[in-house]
Amino acid sequence: MSFINKDLLLSNETAKRLYFGFAKDMPIFDYHCHLSEKQILENKPFDNVCQIWLYGDHYKWRLMRAAGVSEEKITGNASDEEKFITYCSVLSKCFGNPLYQWSQVELETFFKCDLEINEKNAKEIYKRCNAYIKENNITPQKLIEESNVAALFTTNEVFDDLSTFGKIKEKGYKFKVAPAFRADKIMNIEATRYNEFIGWLEAIEGPIKTLDDLEKAILSRLKAFKEVGSTATDIALVSVQDIVSKEEAAKIFAKRRSGEELTEEEANQFKGYMTYFLMWNYAENDMATELHLGAMRNNSTRLFNRLGLDCGNDSISDENSTKKMARLFDALDKDKHLPKTIVFCLNPKMNEEIVTLINCFQEEGVFGKMQFGPAWWFLDQENGMREQLKALALNGNISTFVGMLTDSRSFLSYPRHQYFRRILCDYFGSMMESGRMTKDEAFVGEIVKDICYRNAVKYLLGE
Amino acid sequence: MSFINKDLLLSNETAKRLYFGFAKDMPIFDYHCHLSEKQILENKPFDNVCQIWLYGDHYKWRLMRAAGVSEEKITGNASDEEKFITYCSVLSKCFGNPLYQWSQVELETFFKCDLEINEKNAKEIYKRCNAYIKENNITPQKLIEESNVAALFTTNEVFDDLSTFGKIKEKGYKFKVAPAFRADKIMNIEATRYNEFIGWLEAIEGPIKTLDDLEKAILSRLKAFKEVGSTATDIALVSVQDIVSKEEAAKIFAKRRSGEELTEEEANQFKGYMTYFLMWNYAENDMATELHLGAMRNNSTRLFNRLGLDCGNDSISDENSTKKMARLFDALDKDKHLPKTIVFCLNPKMNEEIVTLINCFQEEGVFGKMQFGPAWWFLDQENGMREQLKALALNGNISTFVGMLTDSRSFLSYPRHQYFRRILCDYFGSMMESGRMTKDEAFVGEIVKDICYRNAVKYLLGE
Amino acid sequence: MSFINKDLLLSNETAKRLYFGFAKDMPIFDYHCHLSEKQILENKPFDNVCQIWLYGDHYKWRLMRAAGVSEEKITGNASDEEKFITYCSVLSKCFGNPLYQWSQVELETFFKCDLEINEKNAKEIYKRCNAYIKENNITPQKLIEESNVAALFTTNEVFDDLSTFGKIKEKGYKFKVAPAFRADKIMNIEATRYNEFIGWLEAIEGPIKTLDDLEKAILSRLKAFKEVGSTATDIALVSVQDIVSKEEAAKIFAKRRSGEELTEEEANQFKGYMTYFLMWNYAENDMATELHLGAMRNNSTRLFNRLGLDCGNDSISDENSTKKMARLFDALDKDKHLPKTIVFCLNPKMNEEIVTLINCFQEEGVFGKMQFGPAWWFLDQENGMREQLKALALNGNISTFVGMLTDSRSFLSYPRHQYFRRILCDYFGSMMESGRMTKDEAFVGEIVKDICYRNAVKYLLGE
Repeated sequence: MSFINKDLLLSNETAKRLYFGFAKDMPIFDYHCHLSEKQILENKPFDNVCQIWLYGDHYKWRLMRAAGVSEEKITGNASDEEKFITYCSVLSKCFGNPLYQWSQVELETFFKCDLEINEKNAKEIYKRCNAYIKENNITPQKLIEESNVAALFTTNEVFDDLSTFGKIKEKGYKFKVAPAFRADKIMNIEATRYNEFIGWLEAIEGPIKTLDDLEKAILSRLKAFKEVGSTATDIALVSVQDIVSKEEAAKIFAKRRSGEELTEEEANQFKGYMTYFLMWNYAENDMATELHLGAMRNNSTRLFNRLGLDCGNDSISDENSTKKMARLFDALDKDKHLPKTIVFCLNPKMNEEIVTLINCFQEEGVFGKMQFGPAWWFLDQENGMREQLKALALNGNISTFVGMLTDSRSFLSYPRHQYFRRILCDYFGSMMESGRMTKDEAFVGEIVKDICYRNAVKYLLGE
Repeated sequence: MSFINKDLLLSNETAKRLYFGFAKDMPIFDYHCHLSEKQILENKPFDNVCQIWLYGDHYKWRLMRAAGVSEEKITGNASDEEKFITYCSVLSKCFGNPLYQWSQVELETFFKCDLEINEKNAKEIYKRCNAYIKENNITPQKLIEESNVAALFTTNEVFDDLSTFGKIKEKGYKFKVAPAFRADKIMNIEATRYNEFIGWLEAIEGPIKTLDDLEKAILSRLKAFKEVGSTATDIALVSVQDIVSKEEAAKIFAKRRSGEELTEEEANQFKGYMTYFLMWNYAENDMATELHLGAMRNNSTRLFNRLGLDCGNDSISDENSTKKMARLFDALDKDKHLPKTIVFCLNPKMNEEIVTLINCFQEEGVFGKMQFGPAWWFLDQENGMREQLKALALNGNISTFVGMLTDSRSFLSYPRHQYFRRILCDYFGSMMESGRMTKDEAFVGEIVKDICYRNAVKYLLGE
Repeated sequence: MSFINKDLLLSNETAKRLYFGFAKDMPIFDYHCHLSEKQILENKPFDNVCQIWLYGDHYKWRLMRAAGVSEEKITGNASDEEKFITYCSVLSKCFGNPLYQWSQVELETFFKCDLEINEKNAKEIYKRCNAYIKENNITPQKLIEESNVAALFTTNEVFDDLSTFGKIKEKGYKFKVAPAFRADKIMNIEATRYNEFIGWLEAIEGPIKTLDDLEKAILSRLKAFKEVGSTATDIALVSVQDIVSKEEAAKIFAKRRSGEELTEEEANQFKGYMTYFLMWNYAENDMATELHLGAMRNNSTRLFNRLGLDCGNDSISDENSTKKMARLFDALDKDKHLPKTIVFCLNPKMNEEIVTLINCFQEEGVFGKMQFGPAWWFLDQENGMREQLKALALNGNISTFVGMLTDSRSFLSYPRHQYFRRILCDYFGSMMESGRMTKDEAFVGEIVKDICYRNAVKYLLGE
């Protein structure tokens, strides 16, 4: 039996009652993730536990690299079993790391295996899990349904094929799947392959010579996304940039389209303009914006050249500016086109800055219009979640919070919602037991349900 | 009965003994607040609890806005009762927010009403409190005296009428009232109404054509403030600016006086010079400086146009610079004109930076000359206070701390001093019980009394 | 009896078993300190406790200055007894400060005196400790050996005389002493005495006219350091700077050598180049780099003119840049010359930024190549250590951590290793008891031993 017990993170009796009585059985609305809609549609059974666990999960890769494990056994040609055993061995010593707990929870939740993860047990775990996978024919659909997911939003670029979503609908799964609209590849004008990406958009929308053409194409795609049920959008930026005029942006776009390289300043100016343009139109289309700020990506050129994007080569940036963020929100607000916005910030030192800022831009008649997003990526762990909740509660109105998402590439990540719910209940429970808030559990329980699920549904699906 | 009990925030027995035995009954010296001296003089009974509670309290407005409440029911034309009930309903779900606890404490302290604040009880609370107000003829004087306030400093601009303070003295209240000197309206040269403000100063001190004239006028006013008992001054800045020469500042002043707009850089240069000029003269006049850093104000133009200043439209800036702060202190220190200074910083990420910096500028023979100010504004809550105390204790000498103030516009804010005292006693009590510090309660109790009241008196009143 | 008890900081039973069963008796490898190798060689008995305690310890001076104590009684001509008594009196009120606990622990550890430090006991403590010193003939060797130190690295400049280390070896002490190589005096090109320092290097290595000459001299000294057992190097920077070309650096060097002053930008450019040059060569020589970032030094000119460097006149800078740090590591990594690096950062707001960044640069086959250094200087206290451990655990692999050092100028600092070990065991113990990690104490105990001692030995001595 592993160290995980049913009261994980629940340090007091009220917390337990809140979690088991109100939070645990609420459905999940995973309003931002990176699951592949194609995999969901195909619904192919998995081969083995290493495939589900280690393929594509760069959180895990980083822990192995820190221990000096060779890339061969991480992303290379070693056998799945060897990779799995290596990971178990490394993980067993990563005390305090969220994966240390999550991996164990995933084993127990999805494979009914409660052996403690370590070098000694690794082989046996591998065997048992694979047997379980085979016996139970584990597919994406099964994992998602077992997790009580009611709906999920994948993240799709402007040029992605949307036909998959219709086909998923026909499958009759118990959960809904819709895309969140993301124009990052169109905004990140400094990328080497930028003109190639524009080409993909041209293939759908026709020639894109000017910024006007680009905008028209983007809006056309936005409409197409809405038609398949999209109500959310996503923008990822290292930091918010100053808004320049359309004329300036058009010049920069023309320059890049002609194949020239841009200065860092030009690229930032273009992003500044585009962020404004996009958010204005998201508001116009009544779509919410998820603003992901503060990731500094692809730090090691060596690693990037070897493995490409999203391989565990990113870190937390210190560059964001609350003043620029304030100006962006204010410009949109003055134009009456500030969309509902969820600000995710990767740098915890900005928690208080952001919570206090967004509360200057709330709107009459909209419940929790400006949201401080849940702890994200590197902060998506016990401490990060507790800090996010505290910052929000102390300087905002926590009852309006839209709650957790996975942001994950893995079908095994849903227990993170339960992890979040435990922490939420523990936070409220501790305050209740120590005389910091009401003892009315039924009342608090309803707010718990709101934060676990209902607020997000109201916010993003209008239900 | 509400959730508040007498041991609020006191998690151990030693803490309770420290609080009830030493802290609780110390008088209050509220050395920085925004109460109106005119209201204190007039001493008019309040009409109803909504008036006392919600008029002017933008902390409360923000919570309602976050829930999507219409401005009508916040600052608009809805009835006082409707506003009050709306607030109660919203507040009852703001778990973890300081207002959630403070509002409840205020009800019990000042209106002897221990009904829990929520939608269900709101009407009854409104009725009871109003009855209490009528029966007991609640006035500013009563609220202040009931709170055991010995002295308070209002915050006044250079051109404010000081005659009120003499008249208050004649009233024979149990507490003293003096103004803290503040030249912000004269320093914030970029303000639209800047020349109007200078005009108000001219009305008192005669024509102000040059920077020399301005300085003379300011110093004359400083003298007038001293004559009515002022020993403290106040400077609010988004961030400390570089010091430019008087010549440069004079040019910028002349430009602005001629009606021209300034660049952001010019405005900052002027502020850099003026901060130095003011602090030099505060030192010369043996007046302490309270330096309030890090508020980014009036973020939403829409809200500003609708409601003006101080309406819940501010946030925490990320722009301050420890290097510039170091240079300012050093320049004054080299001139032997660094005044006693209390640094209030709104950004908690700077706590350690500031505590370590000010301890480079302590002075022989002055007890705690450079102070790390108590948790302020958005940080004026349990977590902010605990972090402030910890940062100060870990890198400074906490026994010299001048302690808490309210910074408030409301006559109901004094329980915040008790809130702070509970946290202070809880901090010391926890360390005592866990073997981290002496068990000598009598000794610790005296330090508690110092921090609660006596240090501030010694520091600001020299008694 | 003082407040210190044997379970200091150990809040649960598992923590106690881990500490007493695994951590406590591990030897100490103090891989970064500022002890004087000459004093170690001379091994002269101390005169009195004030000399050991207060001479040179600017942490203590700052506490006294904050209380307004005159410099006379801190670093001036007052008698040792008066200084000692003054310190005891001030310290007794510095609740929460690390010195408050450490001083007490030092008394008990090294002088078997368990009187509580305060004004009342000060005279008696002074008497007892001095008697103990006389009776037991306390020398540096005794203090170090009593602390179970297996090895220590002093910090030496390029021009330091290395013959001392050979002579120490001949003394047959139970501990090893080697120098860490530090070229800061050669890198800090803006220093008034820069050309004098170069002169000292010329005295050893011959004329240094060009940057080429300088580099040759540095590399020659690096070789000499290696020959006396040096395996570590040290670089202290306010913040990491951009790397400029050798040509640019050479021009700046020539300008400075000709006696000219440099602009701040030029000085930074030179440091940017030199940091790259040094780390490249440290990698080439298989020596680890300790990168100390974020101290803003000599803030008060008045204090600097009076007492010089390292007198309690430093603070935490807010200027560091993760982007520049990322570019430095990447440039070296691309060249396959990124050395093993331990990043020490003085600003806690960067904890998460740095942990996530360094984990992009780990290397196959090297156990924990990139290290997040232990809490340093102002952060070297309970809270700082807990935050460092948490940041590391949450976003990295804590089992690879090389653990604690003293960074101290005092022979009494070794209990800080025990302080760290208690906190480490408390952290793990709390997670074990609350179901956050394995209950296998034998397994955890081995990791504890690794972090307390063995990882550092493996990392720096290759044993």
